[in-house]
Amino acid sequence: MEARMHKAAIIGAAGYTGAELTRLLLAHPGFSVETVTSTSDAGRSVSDLYPAMAGADMVYVEPDASAIAATCDVAFLAVPHTAALAIAPALVEAGLLVVDLSADYRLSDTATYETWYGVEHTSAYLLGGAAYGLPELWRDSIGPATSLIACPGCYPTATLVAIAPALGAGIVSGPIVVDAKSGVSGAGRGLSEATHFPSANESLEPYSVGKHRHTPEIAQGLARIAGTPVGLTFVPHLAPMTRGLLSTVYAPIAAETDAARIHAAYTEMYADEPFVTVHPVGRMPATKEVTGSNRAHVGIAVDGGSGILVAACAIDNLVKGAAGQAVQCANIRLGLDEVAGLDFPGLVV
Amino acid sequence: MEARMHKAAIIGAAGYTGAELTRLLLAHPGFSVETVTSTSDAGRSVSDLYPAMAGADMVYVEPDASAIAATCDVAFLAVPHTAALAIAPALVEAGLLVVDLSADYRLSDTATYETWYGVEHTSAYLLGGAAYGLPELWRDSIGPATSLIACPGCYPTATLVAIAPALGAGIVSGPIVVDAKSGVSGAGRGLSEATHFPSANESLEPYSVGKHRHTPEIAQGLARIAGTPVGLTFVPHLAPMTRGLLSTVYAPIAAETDAARIHAAYTEMYADEPFVTVHPVGRMPATKEVTGSNRAHVGIAVDGGSGILVAACAIDNLVKGAAGQAVQCANIRLGLDEVAGLDFPGLVV
Amino acid sequence: MEARMHKAAIIGAAGYTGAELTRLLLAHPGFSVETVTSTSDAGRSVSDLYPAMAGADMVYVEPDASAIAATCDVAFLAVPHTAALAIAPALVEAGLLVVDLSADYRLSDTATYETWYGVEHTSAYLLGGAAYGLPELWRDSIGPATSLIACPGCYPTATLVAIAPALGAGIVSGPIVVDAKSGVSGAGRGLSEATHFPSANESLEPYSVGKHRHTPEIAQGLARIAGTPVGLTFVPHLAPMTRGLLSTVYAPIAAETDAARIHAAYTEMYADEPFVTVHPVGRMPATKEVTGSNRAHVGIAVDGGSGILVAACAIDNLVKGAAGQAVQCANIRLGLDEVAGLDFPGLVV
Amino acid sequence: MEARMHKAAIIGAAGYTGAELTRLLLAHPGFSVETVTSTSDAGRSVSDLYPAMAGADMVYVEPDASAIAATCDVAFLAVPHTAALAIAPALVEAGLLVVDLSADYRLSDTATYETWYGVEHTSAYLLGGAAYGLPELWRDSIGPATSLIACPGCYPTATLVAIAPALGAGIVSGPIVVDAKSGVSGAGRGLSEATHFPSANESLEPYSVGKHRHTPEIAQGLARIAGTPVGLTFVPHLAPMTRGLLSTVYAPIAAETDAARIHAAYTEMYADEPFVTVHPVGRMPATKEVTGSNRAHVGIAVDGGSGILVAACAIDNLVKGAAGQAVQCANIRLGLDEVAGLDFPGLVV
Repeated sequence: MEARMHKAAIIGAAGYTGAELTRLLLAHPGFSVETVTSTSDAGRSVSDLYPAMAGADMVYVEPDASAIAATCDVAFLAVPHTAALAIAPALVEAGLLVVDLSADYRLSDTATYETWYGVEHTSAYLLGGAAYGLPELWRDSIGPATSLIACPGCYPTATLVAIAPALGAGIVSGPIVVDAKSGVSGAGRGLSEATHFPSANESLEPYSVGKHRHTPEIAQGLARIAGTPVGLTFVPHLAPMTRGLLSTVYAPIAAETDAARIHAAYTEMYADEPFVTVHPVGRMPATKEVTGSNRAHVGIAVDGGSGILVAACAIDNLVKGAAGQAVQCANIRLGLDEVAGLDFPGLVV
Repeated sequence: MEARMHKAAIIGAAGYTGAELTRLLLAHPGFSVETVTSTSDAGRSVSDLYPAMAGADMVYVEPDASAIAATCDVAFLAVPHTAALAIAPALVEAGLLVVDLSADYRLSDTATYETWYGVEHTSAYLLGGAAYGLPELWRDSIGPATSLIACPGCYPTATLVAIAPALGAGIVSGPIVVDAKSGVSGAGRGLSEATHFPSANESLEPYSVGKHRHTPEIAQGLARIAGTPVGLTFVPHLAPMTRGLLSTVYAPIAAETDAARIHAAYTEMYADEPFVTVHPVGRMPATKEVTGSNRAHVGIAVDGGSGILVAACAIDNLVKGAAGQAVQCANIRLGLDEVAGLDFPGLVV
Repeated sequence: MEARMHKAAIIGAAGYTGAELTRLLLAHPGFSVETVTSTSDAGRSVSDLYPAMAGADMVYVEPDASAIAATCDVAFLAVPHTAALAIAPALVEAGLLVVDLSADYRLSDTATYETWYGVEHTSAYLLGGAAYGLPELWRDSIGPATSLIACPGCYPTATLVAIAPALGAGIVSGPIVVDAKSGVSGAGRGLSEATHFPSANESLEPYSVGKHRHTPEIAQGLARIAGTPVGLTFVPHLAPMTRGLLSTVYAPIAAETDAARIHAAYTEMYADEPFVTVHPVGRMPATKEVTGSNRAHVGIAVDGGSGILVAACAIDNLVKGAAGQAVQCANIRLGLDEVAGLDFPGLVV
Repeated sequence: MEARMHKAAIIGAAGYTGAELTRLLLAHPGFSVETVTSTSDAGRSVSDLYPAMAGADMVYVEPDASAIAATCDVAFLAVPHTAALAIAPALVEAGLLVVDLSADYRLSDTATYETWYGVEHTSAYLLGGAAYGLPELWRDSIGPATSLIACPGCYPTATLVAIAPALGAGIVSGPIVVDAKSGVSGAGRGLSEATHFPSANESLEPYSVGKHRHTPEIAQGLARIAGTPVGLTFVPHLAPMTRGLLSTVYAPIAAETDAARIHAAYTEMYADEPFVTVHPVGRMPATKEVTGSNRAHVGIAVDGGSGILVAACAIDNLVKGAAGQAVQCANIRLGLDEVAGLDFPGLVV
């Protein structure tokens, strides 16, 4: 289909985001997966660790930046926050396109990064060539000069997609309340008490209130959309399901309007988006609608008495919230069809 | 323990709320269950329909108000909204204490009731002897003259318990955003597409935005607490679990204060409450903590940047959100120990 | 890819099996979906009923056999048992390939069918041109003269794939015990108390013991494999998950052998099967491995002390257990690549 | 109620079984909990670790056998297998009743223990004073001379209760197939990949086939019931739910009989059992029926064609399968009412 196959490395491929990248890229017509790295699972095969990928006999290897630089032209970094700082510079310097799924290059203000992540940002000079990879809002920022794509977090993706049409058009203003709920896979493959089945199952709870690291990223996005800082309260919740993320956003309506006109702003902005569905006014999205797909489904309602716009967006945290969006961004940067390798529905039930 | 046993009827006993009432009252030292009624399951035994209640051989019968009036002194109405209107007046007139779990006598303003429930309120005269049964907030309203107790809805219970200490003390003001999440048992035993297992499982969605009938009840409660109407946006969500309800409440902090002082208002107000736990600042409640018990667990956090108080309350929707609270109110009204029959922990995991 | 597109009708497209067929066929390179029928949901669009299939704007219509015969060359029947009897004959007579997912043409002995399904089999003459569509066992029975493919039930598929290599080679004999567990989607989209979320969630139970209609179908398959009737006890269980079916099969080992030799019989038989994975001895399949895919994963273990072979097979009941297998059979019959439209992994987690 | 309170220590109280013991004993009229020990959580309070037990302010301490011996007369050991060997002897010698929930004293044949558990059995001399604590089958073995009660495993409990009436009466013989399914809490509080929420959720799989340590314990029980060794194949499965265990047992019917006569053997044997329900013929138990209670619900069906009895038993693995049964046994040994502290229903839904 494509004139050439892009040679891809997946670094941190044994985690959930890395596995989802592997699933997507192995079936992608424009990429060949050259290497999958994992420190914890080096020596095992993909299909041994993830039997769903039967036939994927590639073996995880220890990450080796110079070997990757020698054999690949795209590197997907599915590594923990702060780990990308250690590996991205060499890869960019070697001329690879780096698609980073960590948080390390998402914040344009390094001081904010250092405050929230507690480490020094040692490669701020890469931010100049970096794009924040949320195509529905800032597709044009991904251009030929983009050497690094910082893929948004799952909460920022759903939240910004939910509110952008209204906020960008001045229909709503701050302060904005974001009440978000994520499935447990969002916490990754690492074991913890909170993600132990008997703890997480049949329970729902807020966590990291006022402290979640996606807060400054959402704030940055809101400010970009509004052109001015926007008051934000963000509370994530852990929900008893594997996949799925719902962000319910509450914003004061700034000027006299009605639901139909607000809805028109949404349908207009997202009219040509291949991965966004805007539901009719009053129909809200369920996370089940997007399980396994790269879609973002949006619903809005106006709470008449209070003058608050309620906008909700459902995504699969591992796909549109992580691996799928990374592939979408890579497609754009490399001149592939934006939907290449992503053009499949989720599970119907 | 008690000098006499109160003779109780459970009307609508085959639904989930009725079954939970049956579970609680059969083990209660102060009540004897005289009759359990069900139109749909008349002729079956309790243990046949709900095998968890093994040994409960009582048989559901068709409801018969005069027979109940002749044999019982307390009637618990676990019937759908508007159905209590048809049965409560005769029971009150016959001298029974009516503990109503429907919405029919919760709203003091009958016009509001008629707007939201779409029927004429045919027995507004009972409201004079009715108490709104949320003891933690309005225990004193349940007194010797109380002939009918209108038990709060599950969402209002969790929401009002979450915000009352701060709102009552003037620490926060409106407009208030209430983002609430309920397990599927809150929708009752009736079948529907939304509660079909493959639909509800592994999914989470907002519903009835701007239209949920608990909205005016929450607004009424907020106004009583604040002494003035309070702006409210209420969005319920369906969460993939059987039991549990979490209400996350967002309210602007009205005056300069800090988390410790706000927390003190909570611990002070709930110091002697047998069913409320106030977590330390920043620790949020999980619904699992209260599964099967009559407890309400509350957590607060101050989102410093935004000046918003985040208060969350977790309850079991069928217990503190329905049957348990009804028993608690009946205990108070009848002079029993408030915790009689309710003094057990939930499941530890 | 294909020289021509086959024009397909999906009859009963609004149920879960029909929806899964729709998901698969809309993305299939060899089929165009001409019509989707539904009596209950006529007038709604696919994407309205199943938002996961965003963009699928085709509208469900009432089934009309003559219209289908005039416009299609393949009809997939995703209808309840006994309903296919009413529609298949006309379609076959009109020259369409009928791929029937109901049970109506699975049993070669019509008396057995009539006993278990309680209706007269009114079109036994179609059985001559019918193939039982389980390619891994009887691929060659699907040939140019096949006018109707009777797709196996979900339980028979997993059970026969689990035991065929050992039973066919005479390694085991009867009597065989089949303890099978299915996710709730296997019960379909129809509402019932058993599939109401609060009933099914967090519970597991046997059902239809000695009465499940897949019993004679499994028995027929075992007899075909063994060349002689085989004693069978089959107990299905309802498990608290949406998708996934596991059949655990227990069979006495007939002759002296060991696990390695038994395993060799499995790997040999399934060596070239595109959808079957045989795990190493002692590694058992989890249903999660096949969620959303057309795969069947098999594991075996020998319980040394007892001389019993334990063989387990995991499938997705809606894919390999229904819609996926139907597409696989249609591919074979129509000369398409057997994996066309089915060559994707399941969810990795 | 009781003339005196028995002073109890719970050793290993911070695990799930220990927490369930804590829940039960804190509310028990015949016990006072003197100490709760935990190596991992020493210093935390019960209610801090398990908020469901609000008000339980007792603090976990490091285990100290001599302190326990000085202050308690009963010790419940909720410790891992082989750990009881290190602590039980001193406690028995000090005159305490030891109720051991580990496997260390379940097997009367120490060679079998050493083979399956891989350690030397260093206190076989305690077996003389030990009773196997499954009251429904061997109540009389718990007598005044019993110094140690070895509480059965969860799988043996459900399996033996399921088949005892038929096997003991000679209605069935071996070889017996036991296909059992357990909720994830059965694996305890320890973290593992298999019990990580995204791994366990929405999946079902066999595990430890031919290797599970409950195998010799089940075999020992079957042999005691039958008076002769019985062939056994036991396959446990991990099911996607927190609590609940179902054992489905398949046994050849030895002599001509029918379902009604077999059922009579069950109802007769369990007629006076306070915790056992025998369902009518053909009605099978669901694990939900016993969530949170000490009950065992049994159903049987005869698969006519095959001459196999299918008997199933559902228990809550943490209650009747562990902590509840331990309390039941202690009640018996100490002359308390057998149902004391256990006489409550499970959750109705």
